[in-house]
Amino acid sequence: MLRIILCGFGVVGQNFAKLLLSRSEDLYALHGLKLRVVGVFDSKGSAASSAGLDLNRLLEVKKKYGDIRKYHNKEKNANGLEMIKGMDAEVLIETTPSNYKDAEPGMSHIVNAMKNGLHVITVNKGPLALAFPSLIELATYNQVLLKFSGTVGGGTPIIDYAKNSLRGERIVSFQGILNGTTNYILTNMANGMTFKTALADAKKRGYVEADESLDIDGFDAAAKLVILANWIMDMKVTIKDIKRIGIRDVTTSDIKKATANNSAVKLIASCNKELLVAPQQISLDDPLCVNGTLNAITFNSEHSGQQTIIGRGAGGMETASSILRDLLDIRQEMSRR
Amino acid sequence: MLRIILCGFGVVGQNFAKLLLSRSEDLYALHGLKLRVVGVFDSKGSAASSAGLDLNRLLEVKKKYGDIRKYHNKEKNANGLEMIKGMDAEVLIETTPSNYKDAEPGMSHIVNAMKNGLHVITVNKGPLALAFPSLIELATYNQVLLKFSGTVGGGTPIIDYAKNSLRGERIVSFQGILNGTTNYILTNMANGMTFKTALADAKKRGYVEADESLDIDGFDAAAKLVILANWIMDMKVTIKDIKRIGIRDVTTSDIKKATANNSAVKLIASCNKELLVAPQQISLDDPLCVNGTLNAITFNSEHSGQQTIIGRGAGGMETASSILRDLLDIRQEMSRR
Repeated sequence: MLRIILCGFGVVGQNFAKLLLSRSEDLYALHGLKLRVVGVFDSKGSAASSAGLDLNRLLEVKKKYGDIRKYHNKEKNANGLEMIKGMDAEVLIETTPSNYKDAEPGMSHIVNAMKNGLHVITVNKGPLALAFPSLIELATYNQVLLKFSGTVGGGTPIIDYAKNSLRGERIVSFQGILNGTTNYILTNMANGMTFKTALADAKKRGYVEADESLDIDGFDAAAKLVILANWIMDMKVTIKDIKRIGIRDVTTSDIKKATANNSAVKLIASCNKELLVAPQQISLDDPLCVNGTLNAITFNSEHSGQQTIIGRGAGGMETASSILRDLLDIRQEMSRR
Repeated sequence: MLRIILCGFGVVGQNFAKLLLSRSEDLYALHGLKLRVVGVFDSKGSAASSAGLDLNRLLEVKKKYGDIRKYHNKEKNANGLEMIKGMDAEVLIETTPSNYKDAEPGMSHIVNAMKNGLHVITVNKGPLALAFPSLIELATYNQVLLKFSGTVGGGTPIIDYAKNSLRGERIVSFQGILNGTTNYILTNMANGMTFKTALADAKKRGYVEADESLDIDGFDAAAKLVILANWIMDMKVTIKDIKRIGIRDVTTSDIKKATANNSAVKLIASCNKELLVAPQQISLDDPLCVNGTLNAITFNSEHSGQQTIIGRGAGGMETASSILRDLLDIRQEMSRR
């Protein structure tokens, strides 16, 4: 039995609850995994039950009132850090929004959870972007697991592929389209839109972060590059070590030059000699050259050649599914100890 | 220490020997893996040493004489089955050519090895295509492992990705370009060549099997489909259950129709309601639509959407690298028992 505290009950948190509801029986039958969400909190308040929250009711309450505090008849309202420090649980799932200034409140949730002996699954990239090496050290010191499958590639297990499926192989370098929003904008620019129109269209579709700079100026891609560089290439770096150029200055003329060159301009995050996020020309024949909101990454391996993985980079259910994968890992690791 | 008997010393076998020579130190340092090749045999004869063969000398002898029997000063010449039954070893690596009539001699090598308690790694698809379900049963009965990473996707760990990286997720269906030779031919046809010219060109480049029918009539793709259907979808099928149409009857007119449709004709192996290998139109915008000798496969998952993996499907060093991956797995499994 894994008892879970869930930080954040937005799109990812709600999809995770739905996924648990639909999968609980087969998770137990197929993987022996029993899960119980004992606490949930967001910026407004919290709901908790050591016997396990009724996820159906929690989803209804959230839908009806937009506020999970209404789950309890009385006004219980432990704050997040109190819950992390006070409740009996095995796993903290951190789904609050990423920021790259101080990574709060996610950073405090993660640090306090690990200090209290909880395993952590984060889909929030902020804390990893700012402090990957020290968070891994903290996890090791406290003998807990820190998992983050959902931070890169959403439901597409890019991190796992590079680390596990390619075990025994040496990855020499990699380059990828790691941000779907900028790829969507650049694809529309290739089809004739100006940057301004394409950005407006992406906003209308809900593809752009509340702070557009996170997408447009390459922070999101840079954060993912930090995570991959640390985890796959054993580098000890943070977002400060990434050279970062966004797509704000990509002109219609750049796009036309690329087209004439049988190529397209893509925002590429690359780990070769340096760590770089920047717009680059990619040949239309390159498997990496995917369109729309797709993500893609190419690993250059020593003996197995170039390998490219393509998938949807984001989406609530996709990310929820990555959390489930991390939970399966945690359960397996725990059973070996 | 894993002691290895190697069946076949062609391109894959020799590349495997080279890989061991270049990687032996870091395999031990990074993975605690110590390997010793105690026997090698091919259709002509064999070389054996319980202290471990000198792989450098074995490669030299093969290069100089084309015959590994010259490794020994005296004419030792145990046949393969005698070696499998008589030598102390932990792992048999089967690299003899695939055939889809009786799968011999690979079938006898594998069956006898498992009956003698050896783990088996095969890159030969024949035995799996003809008898996957019963070979898995035999492995289970004899408590040995049967590994086959190199049979699909060469160095690209497609099988591992679907089985492990997507754990906890349900794969609903998949479709792929699993044969690089036919993809090369169809790509050239899209660029204006006739089937005949494109086939001749592929032959000249050494891309086509000695028996061209294995590629052109879809046997190779069908064998890979059998392996994926059994392993990933838990189906109990053999090559007889695959509906198979090759590319012999693809005309220039079919190709032109596809082009007009913003598509290309590809030989697609698919597992949906039925198991099918057949030429199909694929949109040029589909990540699956790769050119040249590349392979690609798209998995349709329940919660994580479509995911596509693209890589080189074959090549001696790529396949050798997949054998190494299987050896790491075997070592890990053995240490858990």
